[in-house]
Amino acid sequence: MKTDRIFLVGISGSGKSTVGPRLAERLGWDFADTDRLIEARTGRSVAAIFADDGEQAFRTLEIETLDELSRRDRVVVATGGGAPTTQGGRDAINRGFSVWLDIAPPVAAGRLSQQTGNEDRPLLQGNAEARLAGLHAARAQYYRRADLHLDDDDAPVDTLVDRIAAALRESTGLAATVTTPSARYPIFVRDGALAELGAVARNVGLHGRAFVITDSNVGPRYGRAIEQALGRADYPVQTFTIRAGETEKNLAAVEKVYDWLIDCRAERQDFIVCLGGGVVTDLAGFAAATYLRGVSFIDVPTSLLGMVDAAIGGKTGVDLPGAKNMVGAFAQPSAVVCDPGVLAQLPERELRSGWAEVVKHGLILDRHLLADLEAVAGDPHAMQDGDLIGRSVAIKASVVSDDEREANRRTLLNYGHTIGHALEAVTGYERYLHGEAVAIGMHAAGRLSTALGLLTGPDLARQQEILTRCGLPDSASDVDLDRILTATLHDKKVASGKIRWVLLNGLGNACTRNDVSEEAVRAAARPLFA
Amino acid sequence: MKTDRIFLVGISGSGKSTVGPRLAERLGWDFADTDRLIEARTGRSVAAIFADDGEQAFRTLEIETLDELSRRDRVVVATGGGAPTTQGGRDAINRGFSVWLDIAPPVAAGRLSQQTGNEDRPLLQGNAEARLAGLHAARAQYYRRADLHLDDDDAPVDTLVDRIAAALRESTGLAATVTTPSARYPIFVRDGALAELGAVARNVGLHGRAFVITDSNVGPRYGRAIEQALGRADYPVQTFTIRAGETEKNLAAVEKVYDWLIDCRAERQDFIVCLGGGVVTDLAGFAAATYLRGVSFIDVPTSLLGMVDAAIGGKTGVDLPGAKNMVGAFAQPSAVVCDPGVLAQLPERELRSGWAEVVKHGLILDRHLLADLEAVAGDPHAMQDGDLIGRSVAIKASVVSDDEREANRRTLLNYGHTIGHALEAVTGYERYLHGEAVAIGMHAAGRLSTALGLLTGPDLARQQEILTRCGLPDSASDVDLDRILTATLHDKKVASGKIRWVLLNGLGNACTRNDVSEEAVRAAARPLFA
Repeated sequence: MKTDRIFLVGISGSGKSTVGPRLAERLGWDFADTDRLIEARTGRSVAAIFADDGEQAFRTLEIETLDELSRRDRVVVATGGGAPTTQGGRDAINRGFSVWLDIAPPVAAGRLSQQTGNEDRPLLQGNAEARLAGLHAARAQYYRRADLHLDDDDAPVDTLVDRIAAALRESTGLAATVTTPSARYPIFVRDGALAELGAVARNVGLHGRAFVITDSNVGPRYGRAIEQALGRADYPVQTFTIRAGETEKNLAAVEKVYDWLIDCRAERQDFIVCLGGGVVTDLAGFAAATYLRGVSFIDVPTSLLGMVDAAIGGKTGVDLPGAKNMVGAFAQPSAVVCDPGVLAQLPERELRSGWAEVVKHGLILDRHLLADLEAVAGDPHAMQDGDLIGRSVAIKASVVSDDEREANRRTLLNYGHTIGHALEAVTGYERYLHGEAVAIGMHAAGRLSTALGLLTGPDLARQQEILTRCGLPDSASDVDLDRILTATLHDKKVASGKIRWVLLNGLGNACTRNDVSEEAVRAAARPLFA
Repeated sequence: MKTDRIFLVGISGSGKSTVGPRLAERLGWDFADTDRLIEARTGRSVAAIFADDGEQAFRTLEIETLDELSRRDRVVVATGGGAPTTQGGRDAINRGFSVWLDIAPPVAAGRLSQQTGNEDRPLLQGNAEARLAGLHAARAQYYRRADLHLDDDDAPVDTLVDRIAAALRESTGLAATVTTPSARYPIFVRDGALAELGAVARNVGLHGRAFVITDSNVGPRYGRAIEQALGRADYPVQTFTIRAGETEKNLAAVEKVYDWLIDCRAERQDFIVCLGGGVVTDLAGFAAATYLRGVSFIDVPTSLLGMVDAAIGGKTGVDLPGAKNMVGAFAQPSAVVCDPGVLAQLPERELRSGWAEVVKHGLILDRHLLADLEAVAGDPHAMQDGDLIGRSVAIKASVVSDDEREANRRTLLNYGHTIGHALEAVTGYERYLHGEAVAIGMHAAGRLSTALGLLTGPDLARQQEILTRCGLPDSASDVDLDRILTATLHDKKVASGKIRWVLLNGLGNACTRNDVSEEAVRAAARPLFA
């Protein structure tokens, strides 16, 4: 499948081994460089193999290596410049999504001459530029067969990575892959993805019957389309609808789901489709994780918050009275299917709430995404092309792949959530949407970061501005600060009564601190609350 | 720690490399043979190393290998005959539990002469017996330092394995180790183990506070001892008591536990102690698995059923109305601590119910255990020395280590449970104790095995006899068979409406069949029900 691996092709100096590792990191995949693999296996340099045994011998080794890589999953491969010139090489490359990094030969020659370690490469002796031009001309007929052609000589590496990830997503729908010790699953973000749900379920190996769980808002809108999509892939389907709303995310609702599954005689090999916003994916995911001690499930988030946050990473669960997400299980879905087309139907307030988590991803880990968000932050519909969602999804997928159980890096995703959760609890989960509460929490955490000397005043102002432009609140001036501070002690991140604060050590660079005094918190949060 | 590895010592021919692998299998550990490791690493035979480089060079290699193994966990090591003669070898061996397989030199010589591959061993040229006698005499001073000395030349391998496992258990309390993809944990079975709970918790790395969950039967009896044991290891302790009884194993009781944990502000690094029978370990384990999406827990089963079954293997959960264990999670404890001393306090009926699962372990996988159970089957207190419990525990630990999620081998543990669960459901979980229902289920499954030609009539009679001698029922003649058969379709082992039956293909050898007709089941079960 083209969603399983990427081959980068192009002449020497086109940036394959620079772009490749960054792209792999972005997708949560492995990286491999065929020339380096061949050298590691033979114990000889590519130049030596060419010189001693001739090109034919090298091409044979190269085809073997490519063929092997073309049977691995989730790997980005930097191929040698001549890899697509052989039939065997092209056969292997065709088993993945291929990208031609097309660079002008003079630019390539200039780059190569500046690298060390290239001194003895025959290609670079004498007139390297002319030789590269000749190779470029001769091989263009093969390079041009790639699925994607990138020819911007000046684009920074991050831009190239973004373009390749975007093209892969547009071509296949795949935005990222989550890999944890217990599971590996794809996240699709594509317009029309709802209609592909049955095919996705078959591709990830689900059989049995499909049990769709949705809510009274989403069900009437997309339930039928989902049933049809599953029916087209020959799944028997039944649907259960819970009442919409955060207040329904409780154990009583989970019990109703259990009762329904028992009535339907749902079995271990059947699977659940969680269709809805964060409340549905959290609740139905928890039901799936615990019914018969765990059945498979697919998340189909229909809110922006669900797509970029709740549905990714396997946190499922429900609220207890006054204590959000206090009960749950880590259970990874078999796939996540996001259709940005559904966002057009969302109330604008809910969409803006979802922006809070997207902006958070930029603030904590990706200045580049933050800058692109700033460019569109006034427009609630800017998410609908899927690109910003895909990038936000990729950040979350990468973080939870590193740290499924929130031992370390995953904690960073809680930026703004300590105060945000407390605010939701104190206001009974009714006054604020989750993203609104988190936005206020980010204001508090940002001010705390600045007070502790971690975030400059101008950067704090930049955070303030993007959140405000997204239409998100920055204070809750009638809510008592003491009640907020008391409620923060119920946070799951509390250890020995000490709160582990997520702060910004500059934009795009979150950190944690567990030595923050209550006085400092109080001073930073004071202007936001009563 | 002596609980982490075993070193077998003794002269050549004493059976170290025969006993070692069987013992490792029994404990769920790895096996290593130092001579074979040295040969694999050097690419030369031990004889060649002696001949070419001399004994000193070999001993150096041997000490290195032993030292490395003495830092590995859960490994049984067959050492070379001269291993304990060097200080370095003894230092390594002292890092584990050591066993001297003491054999008479003539017996050893006889065995070695019958093995192939020994032809060029210098030891066996000429008068091997005299040479072995010399080594035995010279090395006895070192062998004798072993923690266990076994000198029965005629004992079968299984008997030696049983004796070593029993001695390890008596010396350290360790009966078995469970190893799954997600966890590895010890099971202790020893008189007085309750008092060691705090030390066990420290040894497995638990910190934070201890939250004991128990029931109204067990709490008054052992709650204080448990709190003291934890207090001696400096854990702050709080205790919550649920009402005793299977009818309490429901979601409402779990909610009460959640509320208590929230009131106590239990945090992620705290841990739960599940103190009680199967109801408590199932329910409190499920609360631990889901509170804050999972905190650590230790099981302290106080019923025979809990010790040999419920507390081992990570199945936690609760019943739904009319559907037993329908909701739950796989969550492995950090340790299981069984104190057979508490069994003296159990009502005899409950003890007999526990015997059903012990006998089941023999029936499905261990004829040897079955025979030993037959020898004591009239005596409800025969379990109190811990040996039979330890062996039963080891069987269950081995099965769940092979197959945590019940994809294959673990299914065998459900022998008697398809009808047993149905009978419990039909009678409202009140009339039969679990083991009693399972005993009737085993009668049905045994009869079905015989009808299908898998189990001989005499073997079926043998099963019948031991269950009867344990005081367990063999029929429920006033319960409607049709209701039983309908209820079996709710079993979690049902796939596409087909029941996966666990049957006996001879005693000690269970198998599964999913092609059994309803008529065959009806015929086999008919005499047991109305």
